[in-house]
Amino acid sequence: MQDHPVAQLIAAADAAINAQDFERLMDFYADDAVLVIRPGLNACGKEQIRQAFIAIAAHFNHSLQVSQDAVHILHSGASALALAKTRLKADELDEITRDATYVFAQDTDGAWRCTIDNSYGHQLLEPQQ
Amino acid sequence: MQDHPVAQLIAAADAAINAQDFERLMDFYADDAVLVIRPGLNACGKEQIRQAFIAIAAHFNHSLQVSQDAVHILHSGASALALAKTRLKADELDEITRDATYVFAQDTDGAWRCTIDNSYGHQLLEPQQ
Repeated sequence: MQDHPVAQLIAAADAAINAQDFERLMDFYADDAVLVIRPGLNACGKEQIRQAFIAIAAHFNHSLQVSQDAVHILHSGASALALAKTRLKADELDEITRDATYVFAQDTDGAWRCTIDNSYGHQLLEPQQ
Repeated sequence: MQDHPVAQLIAAADAAINAQDFERLMDFYADDAVLVIRPGLNACGKEQIRQAFIAIAAHFNHSLQVSQDAVHILHSGASALALAKTRLKADELDEITRDATYVFAQDTDGAWRCTIDNSYGHQLLEPQQ
């Protein structure tokens, strides 16, 4: 399963986040992708997503490190769902893991791009603070 | 969010399951859809999915009733991710809920169809029995 191109893209995107290389990071997203910044707040489209990552990096004092403890890919035609245990580390943050859900779609050029980036998984169903 | 066409499709698909109308149920799936029957076992394509639902219905002595306690839709272009609390009831089954993940894709004809049906959610990441 780790050989699936989507798993490789997730690992490469994590490396871009950890290097704060947000220009490269945008290559992994579809033009109209949605990123859940926190439950109730989404960034829509590459420009909002790029600005969100810049703000998140600053929020964590440029120390955020993201990795996946486990990834399972379900793949159907031009759709893929990645279920992941996503680990977040940063200064002054107790290390946390999230049950993340990522949707990828395959373009007509054959490339997979993230269309929905929801690291919060089913937390979105819980009552908002 | 319940007004999203994908939420309406999930409710209609539940009604088809509960009525054991598996011909109508197949209308909700893409031709190459994937259904997680249980962790480690997937049905691929409409014919396998239809056979799986027939077997599941028999397994539960034709008493299975499915509903959603909550659904949250994330939508990006022609992709949608539904996060749901899915409730299962059947004779001789303690009522259970699952954190389900459903992926839908919009066809060129504008219709949304389920491409990935994973009622087990992140259970797929747990060690298999």
